[in-house]
Amino acid sequence: MCHHCVIDSVKERMLSRRDLFKVGASGAAAVAATAAGISTTPAVAGGHGAKTAIGEIIDMSHTTSPEFPTYFGVPGISMDQKFNFKEHGFNLFELTLNEHTGTHIDAPLHFSADGKSVDEIEANDLVVPLAVIDIQEKADKNADAQVTPDDLKAWISKNGPLPERCCVAMNSGWGGKTGDEAAYTGRDAEKKLHFPGFHVEATKMLLEESSAAAMAVDTLSLDHGPSADFATHYAWLPAGRYGIENLAGLDQVPASGATIIVGAPKTKGGTGGPARIFVAI
Amino acid sequence: MCHHCVIDSVKERMLSRRDLFKVGASGAAAVAATAAGISTTPAVAGGHGAKTAIGEIIDMSHTTSPEFPTYFGVPGISMDQKFNFKEHGFNLFELTLNEHTGTHIDAPLHFSADGKSVDEIEANDLVVPLAVIDIQEKADKNADAQVTPDDLKAWISKNGPLPERCCVAMNSGWGGKTGDEAAYTGRDAEKKLHFPGFHVEATKMLLEESSAAAMAVDTLSLDHGPSADFATHYAWLPAGRYGIENLAGLDQVPASGATIIVGAPKTKGGTGGPARIFVAI
Repeated sequence: MCHHCVIDSVKERMLSRRDLFKVGASGAAAVAATAAGISTTPAVAGGHGAKTAIGEIIDMSHTTSPEFPTYFGVPGISMDQKFNFKEHGFNLFELTLNEHTGTHIDAPLHFSADGKSVDEIEANDLVVPLAVIDIQEKADKNADAQVTPDDLKAWISKNGPLPERCCVAMNSGWGGKTGDEAAYTGRDAEKKLHFPGFHVEATKMLLEESSAAAMAVDTLSLDHGPSADFATHYAWLPAGRYGIENLAGLDQVPASGATIIVGAPKTKGGTGGPARIFVAI
Repeated sequence: MCHHCVIDSVKERMLSRRDLFKVGASGAAAVAATAAGISTTPAVAGGHGAKTAIGEIIDMSHTTSPEFPTYFGVPGISMDQKFNFKEHGFNLFELTLNEHTGTHIDAPLHFSADGKSVDEIEANDLVVPLAVIDIQEKADKNADAQVTPDDLKAWISKNGPLPERCCVAMNSGWGGKTGDEAAYTGRDAEKKLHFPGFHVEATKMLLEESSAAAMAVDTLSLDHGPSADFATHYAWLPAGRYGIENLAGLDQVPASGATIIVGAPKTKGGTGGPARIFVAI
């Protein structure tokens, strides 16, 4: 979009469509000049209160950037500025993005031969009740801590049965560590990672005793850092459920009663992708 | 994430971090074998009803794919499969993505030197009341039709004042044409485009007489196809408001009373990006 000048230049120069980017630079410059008067419109004051028609909104996504910690230990995103305001009259980037970067979705297809891709997850499963399992106390003592069946039973005894098609989220306290790569990944001298996740037995309990649509963690992986077999990924995703990794904001939401809204990308055939996630309280 | 095997291989081979992707292929294969038993867990039945705790949810995003029409006339996304289930035990793609592809956001920074980037748009401005301006009747007769001040006045006389920080969306009927590139872009023999958008006078009216946070269109651009100066982009975005392009689902939502939930990407310094958008009725 925003490149009418580019389109016009084509008929003049008879270039191939693949050359449009290059030609756009010069053509767009004139647009900036003719519109300079309008572009000085004063800015509007900031947003309204946190309360909306669907409740108070909490932002559950971390900012996606090359600095955000990754499982690989290499940047998950890079940005190539194709156009800039000073030269071309507008700004536009082309992104190179690993699907599993920042606050993101794991679609069933990520760990199965033919499971649902991220665009095939039903919209109704992206707006569901949220159940938060708080394991911060044991995670403070042991970075390899896991959500166990006992943790799920404790939540159920206090809050009642897990809601239909809910999202069960682990709050390990890791959401506050993303600014410190070493603390967030727990990467040791042997390159082994150390952070909390879901134990495969808790995962099997959710599969057998609940209709939970999703599992979420505030760490880099559904499996805890030292996992050698990704047992939780292989139990959960091929079963048609989906995952959320690097979730933020869990300290701001209640253990039960809130609704999570998962803005999963709708990439055709994708195995997941960065997602903007909100919770309505 | 999901590459513990890759991390292990590093200490054995003393490779640089940049080589992790290549090494991952062989290392991950063993993971699939050991987890084969678990990966046969049967699939769960489909989602629940459309009604949620925050109302009925309507999906307002088109599927993002290389086939989706673009303003450039070239694919806005390409997918490079770095790992596949058969060989590596899991699927993962690296995406190359033009920020302004498919159903996406235009942040103020897209058409300004130093406006808000997409990650700086307040979360409260991403969950706002929705006002739908239906211009399908005139757009059926003229592909270059525009939302005018009279269209806005007609909505207001029927529905009352525009809600605080609302999103004003144009329903031109173009949302149903995305499968036909020629019909959706209206590209003529001279490469000029033809589709509806917001007239700059209606844009100025929204800036002066409303606190609307966003403007949305069900076409490729906030400005109508034949625009030569992007007057609406240059009036709206530098003013600190944001835009939504290629919005879907407008025929399924009411003219007023609904809430739009904009899952804008949270890319640091981004000028916009594909967004998963819902409407709660």
